[in-house]
Amino acid sequence: MTKYVLASGSPRRKDLLEQIGISFEIMVADGEEIITKTLPSDIVEELSCMKATEVANRYMTEYTVNRPTVIIGADTIVALGTEIMGKPKDEADAVRMLKALQGNTHQVYTGVTLIVLGLGDRQVVSFHEKTDVVMYPMTEAEILAYVNTKDPLDKAGSYGIQGRCAAHIKGIVGDYNNVVGLPVGRLYQELAAKGLI
Amino acid sequence: MTKYVLASGSPRRKDLLEQIGISFEIMVADGEEIITKTLPSDIVEELSCMKATEVANRYMTEYTVNRPTVIIGADTIVALGTEIMGKPKDEADAVRMLKALQGNTHQVYTGVTLIVLGLGDRQVVSFHEKTDVVMYPMTEAEILAYVNTKDPLDKAGSYGIQGRCAAHIKGIVGDYNNVVGLPVGRLYQELAAKGLI
Repeated sequence: MTKYVLASGSPRRKDLLEQIGISFEIMVADGEEIITKTLPSDIVEELSCMKATEVANRYMTEYTVNRPTVIIGADTIVALGTEIMGKPKDEADAVRMLKALQGNTHQVYTGVTLIVLGLGDRQVVSFHEKTDVVMYPMTEAEILAYVNTKDPLDKAGSYGIQGRCAAHIKGIVGDYNNVVGLPVGRLYQELAAKGLI
Repeated sequence: MTKYVLASGSPRRKDLLEQIGISFEIMVADGEEIITKTLPSDIVEELSCMKATEVANRYMTEYTVNRPTVIIGADTIVALGTEIMGKPKDEADAVRMLKALQGNTHQVYTGVTLIVLGLGDRQVVSFHEKTDVVMYPMTEAEILAYVNTKDPLDKAGSYGIQGRCAAHIKGIVGDYNNVVGLPVGRLYQELAAKGLI
């Protein structure tokens, strides 16, 4: 029976993994995030791999691996044209991002890295999913009211599609859960294809 | 200040309306659903209008309308080619629907009717949103395991995108919350355009 370890402290990723019926432990990666890539799809795979690798190494020093163990790392960013948006620095930064996103279409990228321990050699698989998100126009009052809820402050691109901001989302093309922070459809399929579920 | 009444007993619609910060009462429509239309988009608007009208009439007999009051009716169906899927009759019916949906793209339609009371004449607005949903192939074992969770039994098309079935969803085109049962993005925009929010 496979063991799963989520290398993320995000409550939203925890909820999504639970939603598809996977039991897992959490071991949070807290190392520095160093970006050497420029394409959004490369950046999220690099960062997810960094998180999964840090946790896999720590796991190996703390536990005896006596059954297949999958370490799951993930990273999410928002891209609008050439700008890449992570979490906002402060409320003013959140207002700036939302002003840029409103009325436009942007892309959300989540990279996922699976590191499989306990089956001989360490196996590493990285992939990403891209979702287009179309936002309705927002008034300045709507942006300020939303930032005042504090919901944007811990989220890439300064909004949570699963929160109050749903009122301002016209539609998406791609996986919704990828925007929330973990593409659990693709993740499940990758695990199933490797006989790990 | 506008008052809102949700004419639906669906816990998912309740959650979505709360998610965008609207305070409301619930008054469930329980009349017979009579369909005279054939197009999916017409069917959901007809049924949402039936529910909203029933509740609006009941509301007028029970309360004095002394401020703008919006009755919100909604109905959701799944369409695969020419087949229209409501809730399954039983577990065997759920298995049949899931076998048809897996590996394919289908459409989810939600119709919404807003009846505005308390501003003179009764105003009625109906609209619908359509979302394409692409499902990964599912094995017979995966379908049976999912139906065994009972999650499909109260849902149009026999699945809940917001539940365990997320593992089998490849992506969508359109509004995610429309698939859950209430397109709160469009709903908010319609209310805002009428100065009702």
